[in-house]
Amino acid sequence: MERHFHEELQKLKQDLLYMASLAESMVDQSVKALKERKEELLKEVFQKEEKLNRLQIEIDDRCFELLALHQPMATDLRFIIATMKITSDLERIGDLAINIAQNTTSLLKHPPLKPLIDIPRMAEIAQKMLRDSLDAFVNRDVALARDVVLRDDEVDALKDQVFRELLTYMISDPTTIPRALDLILVSRHLERVGDHATNIGEDVIYMVLGKDIRHRAEVI
Amino acid sequence: MERHFHEELQKLKQDLLYMASLAESMVDQSVKALKERKEELLKEVFQKEEKLNRLQIEIDDRCFELLALHQPMATDLRFIIATMKITSDLERIGDLAINIAQNTTSLLKHPPLKPLIDIPRMAEIAQKMLRDSLDAFVNRDVALARDVVLRDDEVDALKDQVFRELLTYMISDPTTIPRALDLILVSRHLERVGDHATNIGEDVIYMVLGKDIRHRAEVI
Repeated sequence: MERHFHEELQKLKQDLLYMASLAESMVDQSVKALKERKEELLKEVFQKEEKLNRLQIEIDDRCFELLALHQPMATDLRFIIATMKITSDLERIGDLAINIAQNTTSLLKHPPLKPLIDIPRMAEIAQKMLRDSLDAFVNRDVALARDVVLRDDEVDALKDQVFRELLTYMISDPTTIPRALDLILVSRHLERVGDHATNIGEDVIYMVLGKDIRHRAEVI
Repeated sequence: MERHFHEELQKLKQDLLYMASLAESMVDQSVKALKERKEELLKEVFQKEEKLNRLQIEIDDRCFELLALHQPMATDLRFIIATMKITSDLERIGDLAINIAQNTTSLLKHPPLKPLIDIPRMAEIAQKMLRDSLDAFVNRDVALARDVVLRDDEVDALKDQVFRELLTYMISDPTTIPRALDLILVSRHLERVGDHATNIGEDVIYMVLGKDIRHRAEVI
């Protein structure tokens, strides 16, 4: 029984990593479609969303089942709760990729406003944050989780830079406004991808250190 | 012991309602500050955020403790998990109120662009959705929870309307662009408040019906 339980946790971890890689690939492809002006890449993004949502329900259900069947304590309890929190962040990252895909659809109807540099850079940083937050989760690596949390400022700074630059386009030529707005929104969606990676990093710190909880659990 | 446990659940419910009313008042005050151009209202919004974050940690900690100490099954387990999900939605609603307050700070530095009608209306709908989602939670009212989920479209439609209207301002007079952008962002933050209320409604439906889980729990 105990061994079975730990195998289940192992499987949960693998499925969560798979879900994370799916969410990351959605962000990657939506920004790639925008940068390389390849609308056909978006179709896959939309298809993956359903899969991502199904995975969230599946993983959450299994977490519930594990809680109900095994009534785990301390470390395992925190692991399962963290998993449920992370699935909801990943699902929202998927939603953000869909938002980016929608902005991209509208952007690809018009000639490019400018060559994109900061937005792909933001996507790169946010994706790396996401990967690292999951690595931190798997390896219970608090230092890496803290590092992810710190990197959030970098994404925020880029978002402000994108905003200021696009503002100058809009003010000097109002015909650029709709495109500039779509690009501003894309940069905000990417900023929020970074926010969700930060949430995951914070959950990892809490899961591993969880001072209050651990103290109580030891008293029980 | 069992009685103590149910008193604890009762207390959890009350604290969650208090947390929800705090989050709602933050949205209310940030939009009121914008509409009535009263910057002094924003101070309170910023103060409440700390309280809201503390409450989330407190409630989550107590949920953990209840899970570890009482290892509840079926209904109670689903209630506690739903509570933890809802605290995270409420905390994010608080973040969105802060975002609105920040946009308002920048908007109040300039004369009003236009009288605000749709944005206060969006705030009203989103706040009502939030209140109803919590009522649905407390009363295990699936019909009301479903109704909240449906109302999300109304908020989305208003957001699109705000966007289109402000676009015309920007295109006809580029000096309005910074203010119009801030208003567009406020409407997006309010849309996301509605999204979080929708999440809560979905959690309530899952908590009450939770078909898969319940079936399994009954089998245990």
